[in-house]
Amino acid sequence: MFLSTRISSASKSPFKSKTLITLLPIFRRSSTAAAPPMEVSASEETLRGNLAEKRAAVDSQAEAVRKLKAVGAENSEINVAVDNLKALKVEASAVSRRLQDVLSRNGGSGATDREAFRQAVVNTLERRLFYVASFKIYRGVAGLYDYGPPGCAVKANVLAFWRQHFVLEENMLEVDCPCVTPEIVLKASGHVEKFTDLMVKDEKTGTCYRADHLLKDYCKDKLEKDLSLSTEKFTEIKHVLAVLDDLSAEELGAKLKEYGITAPDTKNPLSDPYPFNLMFQTSIGPSGLSPGYMRPETAQGIFVNFKDLYYYNGNRLPFAAAQIGQAFRNEISPRQGLLRVREFTLAEIEHFVDPKDKSHAKFVDVADLEFLMFPRELQLAGELAKPMVLGEAVWKGIVNNETLGYFIGRVYLFLTHLGIDKERLRFRQHLLNEMAHYAVDCWDAEIECSYGWIECVGIADRSAYDLRAHTEKSGVPLVAHEKYPEPIEVEKLLITPSKKELGLAFKGNQKMITEALEAMTEAEALEMKAALESKGEIEFLVCNLGKSVSIKKNMVSISIEKKKEHQRVFTPSVIEPSFGIGRIIYCLFEHCFYTRPSKSEDEQLNVFRFPPLVAPIKCTVFPLIKNEKFDETAKIISKSLTAAGISHIIDITGTSIGKRYARTDEIGVPFAITVDSTTSVTIRDRDSKDQIRVSIDEVALVVKEVADGQSTWADIMWRFPTHSA
Amino acid sequence: MFLSTRISSASKSPFKSKTLITLLPIFRRSSTAAAPPMEVSASEETLRGNLAEKRAAVDSQAEAVRKLKAVGAENSEINVAVDNLKALKVEASAVSRRLQDVLSRNGGSGATDREAFRQAVVNTLERRLFYVASFKIYRGVAGLYDYGPPGCAVKANVLAFWRQHFVLEENMLEVDCPCVTPEIVLKASGHVEKFTDLMVKDEKTGTCYRADHLLKDYCKDKLEKDLSLSTEKFTEIKHVLAVLDDLSAEELGAKLKEYGITAPDTKNPLSDPYPFNLMFQTSIGPSGLSPGYMRPETAQGIFVNFKDLYYYNGNRLPFAAAQIGQAFRNEISPRQGLLRVREFTLAEIEHFVDPKDKSHAKFVDVADLEFLMFPRELQLAGELAKPMVLGEAVWKGIVNNETLGYFIGRVYLFLTHLGIDKERLRFRQHLLNEMAHYAVDCWDAEIECSYGWIECVGIADRSAYDLRAHTEKSGVPLVAHEKYPEPIEVEKLLITPSKKELGLAFKGNQKMITEALEAMTEAEALEMKAALESKGEIEFLVCNLGKSVSIKKNMVSISIEKKKEHQRVFTPSVIEPSFGIGRIIYCLFEHCFYTRPSKSEDEQLNVFRFPPLVAPIKCTVFPLIKNEKFDETAKIISKSLTAAGISHIIDITGTSIGKRYARTDEIGVPFAITVDSTTSVTIRDRDSKDQIRVSIDEVALVVKEVADGQSTWADIMWRFPTHSA
Repeated sequence: MFLSTRISSASKSPFKSKTLITLLPIFRRSSTAAAPPMEVSASEETLRGNLAEKRAAVDSQAEAVRKLKAVGAENSEINVAVDNLKALKVEASAVSRRLQDVLSRNGGSGATDREAFRQAVVNTLERRLFYVASFKIYRGVAGLYDYGPPGCAVKANVLAFWRQHFVLEENMLEVDCPCVTPEIVLKASGHVEKFTDLMVKDEKTGTCYRADHLLKDYCKDKLEKDLSLSTEKFTEIKHVLAVLDDLSAEELGAKLKEYGITAPDTKNPLSDPYPFNLMFQTSIGPSGLSPGYMRPETAQGIFVNFKDLYYYNGNRLPFAAAQIGQAFRNEISPRQGLLRVREFTLAEIEHFVDPKDKSHAKFVDVADLEFLMFPRELQLAGELAKPMVLGEAVWKGIVNNETLGYFIGRVYLFLTHLGIDKERLRFRQHLLNEMAHYAVDCWDAEIECSYGWIECVGIADRSAYDLRAHTEKSGVPLVAHEKYPEPIEVEKLLITPSKKELGLAFKGNQKMITEALEAMTEAEALEMKAALESKGEIEFLVCNLGKSVSIKKNMVSISIEKKKEHQRVFTPSVIEPSFGIGRIIYCLFEHCFYTRPSKSEDEQLNVFRFPPLVAPIKCTVFPLIKNEKFDETAKIISKSLTAAGISHIIDITGTSIGKRYARTDEIGVPFAITVDSTTSVTIRDRDSKDQIRVSIDEVALVVKEVADGQSTWADIMWRFPTHSA
Repeated sequence: MFLSTRISSASKSPFKSKTLITLLPIFRRSSTAAAPPMEVSASEETLRGNLAEKRAAVDSQAEAVRKLKAVGAENSEINVAVDNLKALKVEASAVSRRLQDVLSRNGGSGATDREAFRQAVVNTLERRLFYVASFKIYRGVAGLYDYGPPGCAVKANVLAFWRQHFVLEENMLEVDCPCVTPEIVLKASGHVEKFTDLMVKDEKTGTCYRADHLLKDYCKDKLEKDLSLSTEKFTEIKHVLAVLDDLSAEELGAKLKEYGITAPDTKNPLSDPYPFNLMFQTSIGPSGLSPGYMRPETAQGIFVNFKDLYYYNGNRLPFAAAQIGQAFRNEISPRQGLLRVREFTLAEIEHFVDPKDKSHAKFVDVADLEFLMFPRELQLAGELAKPMVLGEAVWKGIVNNETLGYFIGRVYLFLTHLGIDKERLRFRQHLLNEMAHYAVDCWDAEIECSYGWIECVGIADRSAYDLRAHTEKSGVPLVAHEKYPEPIEVEKLLITPSKKELGLAFKGNQKMITEALEAMTEAEALEMKAALESKGEIEFLVCNLGKSVSIKKNMVSISIEKKKEHQRVFTPSVIEPSFGIGRIIYCLFEHCFYTRPSKSEDEQLNVFRFPPLVAPIKCTVFPLIKNEKFDETAKIISKSLTAAGISHIIDITGTSIGKRYARTDEIGVPFAITVDSTTSVTIRDRDSKDQIRVSIDEVALVVKEVADGQSTWADIMWRFPTHSA
């Protein structure tokens, strides 16, 4: 599951995403860029104040000039005043420019640069069919995308590596459950009641919008464009943005009204906000009587199987189960391309542990890793993420426990191996009001891209919440057992109300009094026991009756009994790393993209610097020139690459070699074999453009060696003669 | 897509699965066992006749005895008659026994054996968590299953091999499209209108049943249990079974009434049959105005992307696109475990070719393969499938074309590599009435299991149907181009009605007449041209008007113009191999399952003889006895196996080695490493139980070699010393 969809501060609701301040697209029901709350740029605030002062000075000087003219003052006097006015205007406009610069850096023309970069990436991705809008010939459906051949290959590679890095490495129990899910399961998990976003409708056209999006767009626009905002208004709007996701439907509605926000497309009035459940609903079987939903996450399939999985694991803890699969969220109005979609691939791990022991045997393997962490203290202080050593973070209690820390480290390794830039990857801790009441600690792996910092992996210690919820709803105990080395003796308090005596004494109120007696704490019961023994009766407050009653000795028996227990029965805690595969892939696309000039320097060429691990195609085979013998050799090499399991393309079109290189650089093929003889060929590295000469017999195995990551290009470079083109 | 869901004989409907005689669970809307139509066992029919005669003889002799007694005949006479009666009864009961034997062989006690075998397999599969009913703690949902850890691993292995064997080998363009599909796409494909099964409802409880299932169950029951069926009735019921899937709702309803068939659970009367659409319906977006469905097949995602994919492939034919993904069918009343489910994984290939050239460059690679084929001629003659050489089948025209033949061969290789028994695999050609009107030829890979012959892969030449349907609905031409070496001159008929003259002459009817003129065939137009030139006018029948009008020379101009054409524009044909992954896996489970006695011979142990390629776990590591040093060595080996990417389990529980072997044989682990020293270990082969001794340094690589299929066990056996336990 995505932890972030089940968040609550103190309420019992497992969701309440509205408490989030820095919510993220797929995962939570809210914004993209996760900025620390109230992170107000000091210079921006100063400049705004400054600008307001300067403008006030300009106004009063202009008034002064007007007065001088009105009273017919001397020209010389007027000229001095006008010069002063001009000088003040120059100062004001300088401050205004500086403020605009700051705003651009925060999201203005910086945003324009990011937008241009994104457009370049997205154009390449769509043109080369990494992905396209689904059902394009029918004008598409918002929030649904197809992966074309290279995108599909990247995805398959990412998932294969995920299996290798997590499932195989940790001996996890992988399961594969259906997407169609009966209502009862999602009632237990809380999704039926709480998995909602607040929506408003254009009152005339019926078009739907996310209420928080409209308010947020309004506020951002105000901050970016309205330079004359008063300090009070500025602070108010900053505050609204900070608490945006905490607002109730009523509060959100009130703000929309207060700011006069209307439907963006038509300017028509909007309805009040109301909750819309984000699950795709359907009906299972022909009767129409069994409602079902397309699962909004894969985790529930693991929880409902806990009993079998625990047994499969020899009734031992800890163990982890994992699942890769499709999840569905019927977004109100999807935007941001691959980042907020209506159907996506999740990869989720549920690691079950004894709540009394969250140590991890392999934590030492990751303890020395150092990377950007963003604990809540730094966020609240308005500071930036800082490099920290993971072991220290756990040791100092910043990260709650070793198992959580272990997965943070493993996620870091996973993402950086894929090619995510470690400078643009941080682990952000959830603020207390972001977390569900039952959650112990949560960290998001956030990756920076042109949309800001994007939550791509959530890693949460969810305590025993999920297993308890399903235990309660299904009546099947989802628990673990720990046998004591020898039985232990425990004392149990026994409260036995006498129905007969209570009935005689209190008639109709008997039931409530019985319940109140049974609900006493140990201390209360022992106090009553003492009082009954010494005085024979006691005044007892029954809250539900709103009054006290007199309890006599014969009305209740209170005793302490000793019992032997052979095992401890408990609900395991679960640590959950949850991966939004599509988001990781999109960020990877951005991190791997760059341009470089063509040989003739008359154009910029696009390159994806995918590591061989994720590259959609590992290798190309080009005959240098159109030549039958070279074509024949190319085909022989192609066969040996297929036999070695290396995905490749062979291009015998005879286009210029430069063009063929450019074409495959653009889809991130790391190695190119050029056939320029029938005995040996060259291998070219995509990024350095270095070439080495390798014999035909060896070439497939050499490419396999670097493509599989057994060696790096640097490793093999010195083993073979360099070739200069 | 599953061809089998879109079948029609002569109508325009792409489905009409009701024309099928030997329909199959997921793929078609019908029965499991694909028996040739009207395949009546001769001896059964003879015996039934025989039995009827004997019984008639018994009846008349009994009558004779009664008469003798009534008329007070002599005891001796009566005794003779009674003896005769007894003899006749003995004969009748002998014939009855023989008939029962025949029936058992066809489906009776043979069925009991199969049932017992299946139960043994399924018990093992469920106990070892290969798969379980989904949402079990909530009492499950019919037709939904979870793959547990070993099942999930088998599935991942099957899919990885599919990618290697098809996508990589053929350089197919793999795509990954969403399951949520807007209505318009499935209207174009015909699913919204035609993807239905006929359903009946219990009129009192509302419980739903598949109408054809009820009729089929009744007929089968009659044939199996009613020994006194008259020859006419017998023939009639055999006929009903044969045409079951051809019956319309009305015919099916009439048969249910005629046979007095009621609801199986309650014996309540049933409603008339009516069509139920098998797609899970949902709504896309918050408005409730955009109906959508969970895709019933993955193929449509490929068809709607044809234009982009063709461009991606350099505008060249042939090329193939492929997709692996979930598909959904809201079955009325799923039965038969993993074979008929409501959600399943499909792997589909759409190979696009020029309809004028269906040769395949790599056909030679498979032409020599010989395996069981079941062309329609054999089916109609009531014969069995026969081994045929694929090349001959294509050469003789039994298989329509090389590309279709190529895929049949590749599917054969795929399935047998997985571990499907080639003796229980056949390729059955569709009968003419099974195929859609547009289909050229279809072959199903059928695998025999305890449920009968199961369609697991459909391989169909669907001509240009799908691309044309989407071209028509979307208005986007999904076509290919072939540039002529040099432009060719073509003659085009030009019919230009004169609106003015027609308007003057026919006023309100002008439009219809214009349309009729434009719709003339070439022959009609030339005839009119000649008539107008010779006589100046002609009588012309306008069907829509229901009368003839007189067309004069000035009302229409007909000419033949010459035009240069530079390219041929055409809709490609598609050859579609479509794989039901879950069915293949289930059949594989049955084909790989066997039992053998334990060492002490006091129990039967279960074994899955999975080839290493599909085995869920490749290897186990056991210290022979509980010993710290051995445990340490086992852990070192485990690390090197992980590094080599070999999935394995390490079991240091100290249970007896025999028990540990049995435990892992039962989930089909092919190799077991037993640590009995700190320098060398033994590797045991699951099926032969042979053991070899290998040094610790080598062991991971040796296991990798056999697990990856680079070598067989036989290959490595002689390279290492044998170890006898």
